[in-house]
Amino acid sequence: MLTDLENALDSFIDVYHKYSLLQGNYHSIYMDDMKKLLEKECPQFIKKKSAETWFKELDINSDGAINFEEFLVMVVKVGVEAHKEIHKE
Amino acid sequence: MLTDLENALDSFIDVYHKYSLLQGNYHSIYMDDMKKLLEKECPQFIKKKSAETWFKELDINSDGAINFEEFLVMVVKVGVEAHKEIHKE
Repeated sequence: MLTDLENALDSFIDVYHKYSLLQGNYHSIYMDDMKKLLEKECPQFIKKKSAETWFKELDINSDGAINFEEFLVMVVKVGVEAHKEIHKE
Repeated sequence: MLTDLENALDSFIDVYHKYSLLQGNYHSIYMDDMKKLLEKECPQFIKKKSAETWFKELDINSDGAINFEEFLVMVVKVGVEAHKEIHKE
């Protein structure tokens, strides 16, 4: 049986694969699909910063694709903001 | 309505608060409770490295507590391993 933490992690992996598999790849999300991910999954995060800017920032190794580790960096940024929001209410 | 990504993030925030609130605090998890979190939520991660070592590594600002950002660093480490495991199967 999975723990709460493992279940939450699995949900992230599912989100990642949902977009990486648009190009049939388990380990890369390309610009077009990253834009879809941002628009669909965290629309408030492209209000101040465009999907293109996000992509450049997240593509740490500059290989033109977001790998799972780079995706988690985004998740951390989004997570920190979400946690702050919760305590604002 | 929350997106899949936001739902997954909320689950992490819930896990974090489940342990931080053991001491009535929204922003700090102390050593004893971090040990409980690791034992309960990701037991395979304290097989090779003790809870004490994890705590020291994660407490980046050395204030004796794990804040939400530091918790997410752990989540990334656990997540990267979990993603690798999935593709091993």
